[in-house]
Amino acid sequence: MKLWCTDYHSPSRGLSFCIEQTLYTENSEFQRIDIVETPDFGRVMLLDGVYMLGSKDEFVYHEMLSQPALFCHPDPQRVLIIGGGDCGTLSMVLKHYHVQEAVQVEIDEMVTRVSKEYFPQLCTCLSDSRAKLVFEDGIKYLRDHHDSFDVILIDSTDPVGPASGLFLREFYEDCHRALRSDGILCIQSESPWIDPLRDLISQVNNDLCSLFPLVRPYLAAIQTYQAGLWMFQLASKKHDPLSVDAEQRVSQSSINFKYYNPEIHRACFALPQFIKELVKTY
Amino acid sequence: MKLWCTDYHSPSRGLSFCIEQTLYTENSEFQRIDIVETPDFGRVMLLDGVYMLGSKDEFVYHEMLSQPALFCHPDPQRVLIIGGGDCGTLSMVLKHYHVQEAVQVEIDEMVTRVSKEYFPQLCTCLSDSRAKLVFEDGIKYLRDHHDSFDVILIDSTDPVGPASGLFLREFYEDCHRALRSDGILCIQSESPWIDPLRDLISQVNNDLCSLFPLVRPYLAAIQTYQAGLWMFQLASKKHDPLSVDAEQRVSQSSINFKYYNPEIHRACFALPQFIKELVKTY
Repeated sequence: MKLWCTDYHSPSRGLSFCIEQTLYTENSEFQRIDIVETPDFGRVMLLDGVYMLGSKDEFVYHEMLSQPALFCHPDPQRVLIIGGGDCGTLSMVLKHYHVQEAVQVEIDEMVTRVSKEYFPQLCTCLSDSRAKLVFEDGIKYLRDHHDSFDVILIDSTDPVGPASGLFLREFYEDCHRALRSDGILCIQSESPWIDPLRDLISQVNNDLCSLFPLVRPYLAAIQTYQAGLWMFQLASKKHDPLSVDAEQRVSQSSINFKYYNPEIHRACFALPQFIKELVKTY
Repeated sequence: MKLWCTDYHSPSRGLSFCIEQTLYTENSEFQRIDIVETPDFGRVMLLDGVYMLGSKDEFVYHEMLSQPALFCHPDPQRVLIIGGGDCGTLSMVLKHYHVQEAVQVEIDEMVTRVSKEYFPQLCTCLSDSRAKLVFEDGIKYLRDHHDSFDVILIDSTDPVGPASGLFLREFYEDCHRALRSDGILCIQSESPWIDPLRDLISQVNNDLCSLFPLVRPYLAAIQTYQAGLWMFQLASKKHDPLSVDAEQRVSQSSINFKYYNPEIHRACFALPQFIKELVKTY
């Protein structure tokens, strides 16, 4: 007997994959958490039945959410991650020696507890004295912080349930205020292939453009997320990821990545024509 | 009742999608052909149960197989398409006024007949006097042609059954001989996310590099193909798609595309680190 799981990307499409073994199933205060073994994607975490990360390809999402913003900033000392309870983004942030403190604010402590057990490779960074874990609502946390961070990364689930507030203009205003005067915000902003998400991408872009002088959407190929193509939006108070300075920092870096590299740093900002039409471009 | 179809990308993963209506099902001499209506991808053609094209996103594959090579060549007068019976690539080729003759050599006449009926928007180009249809084995056709084409596009199905010979070194030798002295070959070369196809990509790259002085692999995001990320390989006797001349031609073109644009022309050649390791890069 083969057990199949389908992650539905709309009522009429989804990614189907075999499950070899279910390792963990639990309802936290916020969501259902499943950990399963799969032949194709390795060990997988699902939240409310939605594919979050797999051990074979989590590197794409985690590198691409974090690195363009971190290399865009000349000296990212204080970094805030909203969400990201699995610690994959945190481990990417701590690869930068500039970083003096990286705060991860996750609403659901159980996600981090489960990740420590089932994805230990993402959580070795927790022994780094620069890592600080906070378990509370990121929206509330941000309201109490002004002029505090160089980079803020929004590592959220889809815009339903606890994460829906992370896609609103009010939240981006709070992010803007919590950033220092040359700070950078970077958010995951869903797939441009999925119809209802296309409207969301435009709305988010519009909101960010009304707050930040420079907003650059970019793309990464994530086979296990909806439609295989994922969008991010980088909103910056001052620095441009396509500046000569930023590109030099990427080229001169000695950090090894599996997806990101100097060519990808520039190329990811090139948008196919049908996606260009969703966002403001410079 | 909802009818679901799964296009299996390995024995343990696949893309599942609803079918509203089956419009056509027939076995040709070579394969089974199905035409179905879907809520998410529009009208879809499947060959032997594998998703070939959908009316909502066929533009990505057809533009990206054809345009980098056509803009790379300064004067593509004679173009050959091997496969491509749906006529989507042919219609893209004929957008270039340089082209004096575009020959489409498809082994299965029934694919073209069905496309005319169910994808008429791809087949309006057949009234163009520059279009020439040949129904025979592309491998045989090529053996009889020397020094004849400026651009050859391999628009094949996956490397099983009738298309398997299109991924062999002998075939690329025939392509090389059929090209003029500054000719360009471009092939679809499957998804770098799928394990057995990764070996194929390396093998094909190796074979092309042994025949052509310049081989440039590139990528496009195709949501309905395996894993959402598709690779192509452009092999050139002389012209470089990343030359200033080629980029100028793209920028100055007045053809409207839905995916391809000047930024994509350059960016598509940037390879993520894990893909770079599969191929020779310059």
